[in-house]
Amino acid sequence: METRTEVLLTELREALRQPDGALQQLLEEYAPQDIAEALSMMDSPTEQAHALLLMDEAVASEVIEYLEPALVDEIFEHIPLEKAARLLQLIPADDAAQILDELDEAKAEALLQQMAPPEAREVRELLEYPENTAGRLMVRQYVRVRPDWTVEMTLDYLRQVGSEIETIYYLYVVDNRQRLVGVCSLRDVVISDPSKRIEQIMETEPVVVQPETDQEEVANLLSKYDLLAVPVVDELGRMLGIVTVDDVVDIL
Amino acid sequence: METRTEVLLTELREALRQPDGALQQLLEEYAPQDIAEALSMMDSPTEQAHALLLMDEAVASEVIEYLEPALVDEIFEHIPLEKAARLLQLIPADDAAQILDELDEAKAEALLQQMAPPEAREVRELLEYPENTAGRLMVRQYVRVRPDWTVEMTLDYLRQVGSEIETIYYLYVVDNRQRLVGVCSLRDVVISDPSKRIEQIMETEPVVVQPETDQEEVANLLSKYDLLAVPVVDELGRMLGIVTVDDVVDIL
Repeated sequence: METRTEVLLTELREALRQPDGALQQLLEEYAPQDIAEALSMMDSPTEQAHALLLMDEAVASEVIEYLEPALVDEIFEHIPLEKAARLLQLIPADDAAQILDELDEAKAEALLQQMAPPEAREVRELLEYPENTAGRLMVRQYVRVRPDWTVEMTLDYLRQVGSEIETIYYLYVVDNRQRLVGVCSLRDVVISDPSKRIEQIMETEPVVVQPETDQEEVANLLSKYDLLAVPVVDELGRMLGIVTVDDVVDIL
Repeated sequence: METRTEVLLTELREALRQPDGALQQLLEEYAPQDIAEALSMMDSPTEQAHALLLMDEAVASEVIEYLEPALVDEIFEHIPLEKAARLLQLIPADDAAQILDELDEAKAEALLQQMAPPEAREVRELLEYPENTAGRLMVRQYVRVRPDWTVEMTLDYLRQVGSEIETIYYLYVVDNRQRLVGVCSLRDVVISDPSKRIEQIMETEPVVVQPETDQEEVANLLSKYDLLAVPVVDELGRMLGIVTVDDVVDIL
């Protein structure tokens, strides 16, 4: 019996031989995780590169997020540098850093040069932290709110910025020096009276890690406290980023 | 060097010898996961039972949620039946089922008889599904919404019911026959225009499992699609419950 992924692989190969519309339709039907799984089963990096090149860049980058970094590196041998750089800058910085980390230095540097400067800078910063630490895994996209905001203001703010931020299930409360003073879950915000202030509902002693914290310790903390993400702070307690549970779940 | 848990264990033993207030204060300072860890390090079920009996029932039941089911069974030998039943009915039904499953049948039946009928019924129903299946792990507490509700109505509804439901990060959209017709993430609701209808933002082909689905397959699906919970449906597509990621994370 064919597995679901084998069926998709057959369909994918079929669609790649047909005009544009067929592939597009197939990609809309499946989750990027499924497409990544089918792609991983293809015979060669050439075939995989060919498939990725025919996809919309938005879809292709989502698929890349779910491929093994070592496989992405092989596929990138068969994709033009500018295209690879554009795909890399569409995926979260921590995933891009993991891919670049496996490449030889010259190739990684060439890709970083081609990436848009803000995205490249974020990836470079992550690469400065030692491997297997929270610093290397953290992302900068998180929701920052102020202690004196009301729940209503916060919900309005989330409506404005929420679509650009992947992880909005925790809101990080910072003072005017960017020091982390509390954490609210989205759940607490949603179930609270709209006139309440964030400082009335926030947890004031959240679990935090430092950028040097080993990824295994991060994984254990997330698992023990059933957290979806943990904030990374510097020695002055200022927010640097967050590590999300999906990035460490494989470590457990 | 003493670990954080050893420090807490020492403090806990100290507080147990002092008047009421000391224990209460200590329990407020620590998360139930920490208290469960310290409790697990105590020498005997007698000491553990003694500690649990001195805690507020709300705290004691939260601690029990994080103890190994086999240890809870040993501790229950030293706790009056009525008290044990009250503690059990305060924890989620799937955790209670796991504990009762390890007890001998007569003791389990005696506890179920003592529990409040609605909670006992829910646990009995779970125990009817085979071990290691989605049916055994699912909980009934989830948010059900209608396709024609607006985002604004949905947020109002969450404010009413959200505090009683543990997992509100997905809203399950059902038709008037209780068939699952879609799933919305809380994120999608929060970032959408308040006048939009649920059917405009819901995912119409959500990942689902059957009650007979093996827990390992459930774990793999949650991990692959980065889901926090998956709905369990019967052969007619009607919602039976949800399995949350924290209940299967140890299986991966």
